[in-house]
Amino acid sequence: MLTYTFDEKKSAPLYEQLYRFIKGDICSGTLRPGEKLPSKRALARHLHLGIITVQNAYAQLAVEGYIVTRERSGYFVAELDDSLLPPPEPEPRREPPKPCRDYLLDLKANRIAAGNFPFSVWSRLMRLTLSERSSRLLDPLPHGGALQLREAIAGHLYRFRGMSVDPENIIVAAGTDVLYNLIIQLLGRDFIYALEDPGYNKLGLICRACGVETAYIPVDRHGLSLRALEESGAKVAHISPAHHYPTGVVMPISRRRQLLRWAGRQGGFLIEDDYDSEFRFSGRPIETMQSIDTGGRVIYMNTFSKSISPSARISYMVLPDALKDMFSEKLGFYSCTVPSVDQYSLARFISGGYFEQHLARMKTYYKNLRGQVIAAIDELPFRKKLTISEQHSGLHFLLKVNSPLSDDDLIACAEAMGVRISCLSQMTHRGDERRFDHTLIVNYSGVTPEQLEHFIELIREIIKSGAF
Amino acid sequence: MLTYTFDEKKSAPLYEQLYRFIKGDICSGTLRPGEKLPSKRALARHLHLGIITVQNAYAQLAVEGYIVTRERSGYFVAELDDSLLPPPEPEPRREPPKPCRDYLLDLKANRIAAGNFPFSVWSRLMRLTLSERSSRLLDPLPHGGALQLREAIAGHLYRFRGMSVDPENIIVAAGTDVLYNLIIQLLGRDFIYALEDPGYNKLGLICRACGVETAYIPVDRHGLSLRALEESGAKVAHISPAHHYPTGVVMPISRRRQLLRWAGRQGGFLIEDDYDSEFRFSGRPIETMQSIDTGGRVIYMNTFSKSISPSARISYMVLPDALKDMFSEKLGFYSCTVPSVDQYSLARFISGGYFEQHLARMKTYYKNLRGQVIAAIDELPFRKKLTISEQHSGLHFLLKVNSPLSDDDLIACAEAMGVRISCLSQMTHRGDERRFDHTLIVNYSGVTPEQLEHFIELIREIIKSGAF
Repeated sequence: MLTYTFDEKKSAPLYEQLYRFIKGDICSGTLRPGEKLPSKRALARHLHLGIITVQNAYAQLAVEGYIVTRERSGYFVAELDDSLLPPPEPEPRREPPKPCRDYLLDLKANRIAAGNFPFSVWSRLMRLTLSERSSRLLDPLPHGGALQLREAIAGHLYRFRGMSVDPENIIVAAGTDVLYNLIIQLLGRDFIYALEDPGYNKLGLICRACGVETAYIPVDRHGLSLRALEESGAKVAHISPAHHYPTGVVMPISRRRQLLRWAGRQGGFLIEDDYDSEFRFSGRPIETMQSIDTGGRVIYMNTFSKSISPSARISYMVLPDALKDMFSEKLGFYSCTVPSVDQYSLARFISGGYFEQHLARMKTYYKNLRGQVIAAIDELPFRKKLTISEQHSGLHFLLKVNSPLSDDDLIACAEAMGVRISCLSQMTHRGDERRFDHTLIVNYSGVTPEQLEHFIELIREIIKSGAF
Repeated sequence: MLTYTFDEKKSAPLYEQLYRFIKGDICSGTLRPGEKLPSKRALARHLHLGIITVQNAYAQLAVEGYIVTRERSGYFVAELDDSLLPPPEPEPRREPPKPCRDYLLDLKANRIAAGNFPFSVWSRLMRLTLSERSSRLLDPLPHGGALQLREAIAGHLYRFRGMSVDPENIIVAAGTDVLYNLIIQLLGRDFIYALEDPGYNKLGLICRACGVETAYIPVDRHGLSLRALEESGAKVAHISPAHHYPTGVVMPISRRRQLLRWAGRQGGFLIEDDYDSEFRFSGRPIETMQSIDTGGRVIYMNTFSKSISPSARISYMVLPDALKDMFSEKLGFYSCTVPSVDQYSLARFISGGYFEQHLARMKTYYKNLRGQVIAAIDELPFRKKLTISEQHSGLHFLLKVNSPLSDDDLIACAEAMGVRISCLSQMTHRGDERRFDHTLIVNYSGVTPEQLEHFIELIREIIKSGAF
């Protein structure tokens, strides 16, 4: 008869210990396939266990397929057609964490000055939401997001961007990555997506990951080149008309209308990325293409990751009517990716006027910061070797340095000084065009006064090394 | 000279009013393409405005492309190659909200008993996270999620599922929808994905939306049919070995090993969906396939939407080592979709033992609830016409009714009584197999005692109508 020693003090219940013993014997071959097991009653008596204990162990072995029951004959070891040897115990794996470079200054990351976010207000609204909505927060939400939030966003778009948007056309998601994925699934993968060159690199990566063919369309001084777009055969184009990243181009009305007509002719769509339109420093904000689109050809996108925080993970898009219906039909099965508590808190944050207050404050903050960075550059002895451009809007500007160093050398030089930079040439797919060379993209928005000195030191070093 | 009447009391600044007047004249054709505009100084004098006001208006018109500057000659109306008529003002759209059926009882939705969630603990941990981490919550997170949360999940998997998992192999995301999207992008779209039939319908929808070819593989009494799987030519298979939805089948060890060997031969992968393994009511939890996988062929998936709340939007997967590296390389550009505050709060919830406490409480709650539902069925006069199966685990069971009504009639009958039900036949792609007919999937987990009466009333009605 099977005999095992039980450990009464062990935390595992007796039936589990018995289950493990028998399973061990089956795996090791001590109990052979087809072998009859003792009856529950007999084994219980033999091992001084309750019959329920044995029954539970047998039931577990049976449900996992180690033993089988034959009507009126009892329990038998199952015929395992695989090797009966148990797989080796997995080693507890623990690799040393990857070294993560800590830069003195990171001008590539496009960080925001998160420290200025009115965190106490946000926490208060979140607490209020938690206590007021309480367990109703656990109810499922519509796939496009909580109606309160979509209404708050529609109100903001009306006040801030002059857009008249039905909240039902707004889709809220956990970041623009998710939105781009949804757009690709909504529109399909069977045609070419046009991307700005230079442009937002991540979008190309998403298209590639989604198996979508892309065409890189040059950005001229009016934005996406219409001729290149027409030649590409694309049907969907991603554009950032209010403020192109990284060149800073603002698309004039003529090009906007040309693009709208192009989309109408193609039966295609324009994805209007309005991501940092909140931070325009001179003149009034520029009208969106969504506002002048009468043919339902524009998908408007924006995010709170620039204006609140990248880790808040709330972005949204405004679909034209036809696509809104198509979305419900084709992708309505998806659950909204943003947690309820965040959605209701953000709705309060916007409706209560805190968001627009915060934007106004940040605009002043960034304007001053940009002023300080540019003033520091202006004081450099080699100022004439530097050209600043596109500094009127958004959270970056371009700094062209007159240097014999290659862009790779510039980046390596900065790296050696603990500064992470990116160059315009890295953002383009036209490798041969020299006009993109020697141009740093200065994402100044996360720079602190102490870090500013590192930056100025870097520029000094670059100019000096060019002098030899 | 251009003459306009300004409204000093209007909230819009003067430069913006001027900008609108001139833009209006350009769009209406009053100012023609190529026409010279008055100099800033002249217009300012004429309209009794400051020169800065005119300058700002002109700058805005220029940046939007309505006018152009010619060096030393002044400002001219731009050549707009589009119709100069302004697009009609968009109508404020507002459709009546879609009617949303309010059921007396919804057995289809697979809701959870959210009211039992320890909401006060969760709120407290969230508040604690908000005050302790404060603005550090705004820092970006690793793409796989906050390390604290991944460590807490690894600890839970060890204690609860006997799994030894490196936290670095865990990827956290805003729901299983997002994880399936990531898996498809990680593994690729060039081969067939095998899905369980009957099975989790949403997965088929996601595959279709992602443009992935699927094969529906019958589930026999041991789970996914190996022969059908081999014949399908699939390379990836989605399985729920611990508790198949909706049939409730528990996959025995022999089938598990066969599937692991199949994946090894194919160089393919098994996606192990362990989604409601927490709620097993008899015996101990069943070992995961991830634990016995020595070849790195299993992607383990689980979610907190069953155990906490669907609106919490936190799910995770455990990747084998090779896929973990591939993920970083191929999809590392994606931002993690779960907000920091939720990640850190959940990490505390798990590490503090609250999660396992909650699970234990819910297990008792669901076990009692299931007992009540089944007891109510047992008391019915026509009890012999009903067969209950697969009630030992998970948050649903199957109820076969002996009725001449078709499944469509059953659903319509329920609908008329304000009850939403689903039938096993709706979850399968094998339309001709009668054995799936007349079987209700009873997702009892969200049922309240009052709703239970509606359910019993429905069953009574179904049996009665069958008697005629």
